[in-house]
Amino acid sequence: MDIAYDIASTILRQLQQPTLAFLIGGMVLAALGSRIEVPDAIYKFLVIVLLLKVGMSAGMSVRDANLMELAVPAVLAAAIGILIIFLGRATLARWRGVSEVDGMATAGLFGAVSASTLAAGMAMLDDRGIAYEGFIGALYPFMDLAALVTAIVLARMSAERKAARNVQGGTATLTMGGRGGFDGDMVRGILVDTVRSPAISALILGLGIGLLARPESVYASFYEPLFRGLLSILMLIMGIEAWQRLAELRKVAHAYVLYGVAAPFVHGLIGFGAGMIAHYLTGFSAGGVVLLAVMAASSSDISGPPTLRGALPEANPSAYVGTSTGLGTPVAILSIPLWIVLAEMVIGL
Amino acid sequence: MDIAYDIASTILRQLQQPTLAFLIGGMVLAALGSRIEVPDAIYKFLVIVLLLKVGMSAGMSVRDANLMELAVPAVLAAAIGILIIFLGRATLARWRGVSEVDGMATAGLFGAVSASTLAAGMAMLDDRGIAYEGFIGALYPFMDLAALVTAIVLARMSAERKAARNVQGGTATLTMGGRGGFDGDMVRGILVDTVRSPAISALILGLGIGLLARPESVYASFYEPLFRGLLSILMLIMGIEAWQRLAELRKVAHAYVLYGVAAPFVHGLIGFGAGMIAHYLTGFSAGGVVLLAVMAASSSDISGPPTLRGALPEANPSAYVGTSTGLGTPVAILSIPLWIVLAEMVIGL
Amino acid sequence: MDIAYDIASTILRQLQQPTLAFLIGGMVLAALGSRIEVPDAIYKFLVIVLLLKVGMSAGMSVRDANLMELAVPAVLAAAIGILIIFLGRATLARWRGVSEVDGMATAGLFGAVSASTLAAGMAMLDDRGIAYEGFIGALYPFMDLAALVTAIVLARMSAERKAARNVQGGTATLTMGGRGGFDGDMVRGILVDTVRSPAISALILGLGIGLLARPESVYASFYEPLFRGLLSILMLIMGIEAWQRLAELRKVAHAYVLYGVAAPFVHGLIGFGAGMIAHYLTGFSAGGVVLLAVMAASSSDISGPPTLRGALPEANPSAYVGTSTGLGTPVAILSIPLWIVLAEMVIGL
Repeated sequence: MDIAYDIASTILRQLQQPTLAFLIGGMVLAALGSRIEVPDAIYKFLVIVLLLKVGMSAGMSVRDANLMELAVPAVLAAAIGILIIFLGRATLARWRGVSEVDGMATAGLFGAVSASTLAAGMAMLDDRGIAYEGFIGALYPFMDLAALVTAIVLARMSAERKAARNVQGGTATLTMGGRGGFDGDMVRGILVDTVRSPAISALILGLGIGLLARPESVYASFYEPLFRGLLSILMLIMGIEAWQRLAELRKVAHAYVLYGVAAPFVHGLIGFGAGMIAHYLTGFSAGGVVLLAVMAASSSDISGPPTLRGALPEANPSAYVGTSTGLGTPVAILSIPLWIVLAEMVIGL
Repeated sequence: MDIAYDIASTILRQLQQPTLAFLIGGMVLAALGSRIEVPDAIYKFLVIVLLLKVGMSAGMSVRDANLMELAVPAVLAAAIGILIIFLGRATLARWRGVSEVDGMATAGLFGAVSASTLAAGMAMLDDRGIAYEGFIGALYPFMDLAALVTAIVLARMSAERKAARNVQGGTATLTMGGRGGFDGDMVRGILVDTVRSPAISALILGLGIGLLARPESVYASFYEPLFRGLLSILMLIMGIEAWQRLAELRKVAHAYVLYGVAAPFVHGLIGFGAGMIAHYLTGFSAGGVVLLAVMAASSSDISGPPTLRGALPEANPSAYVGTSTGLGTPVAILSIPLWIVLAEMVIGL
Repeated sequence: MDIAYDIASTILRQLQQPTLAFLIGGMVLAALGSRIEVPDAIYKFLVIVLLLKVGMSAGMSVRDANLMELAVPAVLAAAIGILIIFLGRATLARWRGVSEVDGMATAGLFGAVSASTLAAGMAMLDDRGIAYEGFIGALYPFMDLAALVTAIVLARMSAERKAARNVQGGTATLTMGGRGGFDGDMVRGILVDTVRSPAISALILGLGIGLLARPESVYASFYEPLFRGLLSILMLIMGIEAWQRLAELRKVAHAYVLYGVAAPFVHGLIGFGAGMIAHYLTGFSAGGVVLLAVMAASSSDISGPPTLRGALPEANPSAYVGTSTGLGTPVAILSIPLWIVLAEMVIGL
């Protein structure tokens, strides 16, 4: 009973944090029909600045990091991304009213990572003075790329098997060339396309500058101090966007709503468990465990959708973007305090 | 003579303040035909950030405020808004060459409040170290909504009376339904529409977050320190815009020019007088009196025009936006030092 | 050998400075086909803020400056701008495959000044704690206007001489009016058009506010602290833009590539030499000499191209913008450390 009260009061206290308050505020404004809108140019600018910040911070840490300490969480991050996709294929993609390609695309977004959710997690840990490895930002691409590549490859392989069955069934006359099974060119294409997306580009640029240059002065005078403020505006945008996307979910099967609400918790638990493994193997910090759970719980809002649209043009964006942006992202952001409480109970902070 | 000299030298010194210097600079650049332009996306972003700041600051203050201390100025603010409209109906709306609906729309904007003018007033008081109640920002919607609702209701009632007279005269065949006299639905519609405008939405969001959440860290790291700088860019935009709008006034009656120049002073005096009442009743601060005068003197530049366009489509935007943005706003901003000097003389600072 | 090593290691160390790192990072991202893009609205905003900052800083310094100290570098700056044009006419404009008007337009951009390059030079001197005259920003328009006016006047005079020869040759029947030789109206037109460009307008506004108003508070709370961060984003944009413009150079003569790479070094040396003259005449600082070289080496990226497009519509923008933005700007920015090293060796810092 005491624990339940503790959790409830902690979560309520965390909802008062600026990050969550702006997210909820954005949803409330949109629900009330406000005409407030943050221009798209500002949104793109905020994303670039925040990802440069996360990347630079990680890059400067990696400089001095023991590479083994980085390797274990990186492998785990990629494994989480892949596991989430197989889990999505075994659940959402088989549910009634969900086409396989739509289900895989949705799982792909939920396996990929949301930069703003990760940034929100970092800000909340900073607020509470909980330390985490500086290189955490460098884990982002491992989970993101692993999830997107796995989802797209599985979806295409399944489409080709179906096409092949139709061919055997007699009507089709075209052969599918060498694209049956695993296809190196396709994987390379997806990797290149994802890395070229604005979000991953900005993160990698930040990583590179943090690693190879000396950005300490500009980091301390600009990127670090403006981080929370720009994040608050980004959260406002995410909240407005989430509410608007929710409407699109009315057009698709109820299965998406169930998945969108439940998946962040399940994925977060997987991430938390993987973080605990790293905690015992390499002394991965409690804050790091929280952020691995946050990354796993989050779903891609920036880099994922265009990549999926390019690679799986037959998938329905109302389904996968609606589920991810309308439900996955706000649920993941609002669940951050849960992982902090869990880490407090399991590891102690 | 000494007092006149004092006023002149104080005003000259105040014109050197960055806020006014950027406003005047924008007007000079526009007058010289400069092609400088601040993109609209930046303008919208600045307005949202400034109103979030003003709202949050007020919200955090209201938390600890004695509600009686807030209630008296709030009622006075609403009364000022309504009084300005009736004054406009008795003057501008009756002058030669001014149609009644255009006159009422113009009075509506002059009764409503300019967020940037209020922000400029706050920055100038801060610069001089003059204290004011933290909840002042919360008075904004009271004056703004009271003025817009009164102006639109009066304009519609008058239009209906005229239509009714035409009906009695014989030609019209449609009845006006239940819309004669006071109409609750209309008032609710105007209120909802105004509250949903981007400016009031941002202010109310800031108020809510300041009141219910704990935004102190993001306020201190972002909204507070960037306030003056972003305001300086906003003043530059207002100056450019004012000069461009002035040209539109050539197309309308001279009465608008007279009203645009005189009204900010008359309205400011009304606000100052109302502030003095609060000063004696509840100990309202001298800085608060100045800001109530500034709010009364200001005319709406962001939230008002779209509301009026929606509610009074037959009114001529060249007249009301031209008068308000071209004359009302710069005159109101430039008159801020006057209210400070007046408060110094009447109350002592 | 030691000196060569010193130069190499200094230059390598300087390439790690955030300013250059972001420029190179932008070029690398563009070369890798990244879809990262900084919205145009942000670019315009950054340029205005940076030029207001440079102008205000110069204006506040000019207030207390000995005007003789300012006059000598100002005359030299204008002389450099003019000399660069005559040099371009004697070289690029005569090379094979280069039309005279295209050559003159290109020389015009290389004589004009890049605000972002100047800002980068200031940031690098600040980082190393090297002092320079506060009024340096005020020299910008002298060099910029002198170069653009000279280039356009020479190009037009040459076009008219050619037209006149054709008239004598018999076919043309129209006389060229009074436009032969030097034309005061034309010069005035170019001057007015350049001064009205967004970049020069913002710089002059900043100068005026710095000189006549008291912007110290907003300068210290906003323009100064955000300078480096906003500059880093601007450098990222310049890098992306440079790489994209390079492609256009494939369409024009090789002479442009040679000029684009060599001219920044030659012009920088001219600027450095002129700075040394001022150093001996009026005690112009070593940091000032570096910045005069940086201004001379830089080529206009913001204000120049639209002015040239208006005044020399027959010139080919692929040639002059491609050479200037694709080669001139990155080479000039990357050569900044060279001028610092040179000043260390020649003057001592």
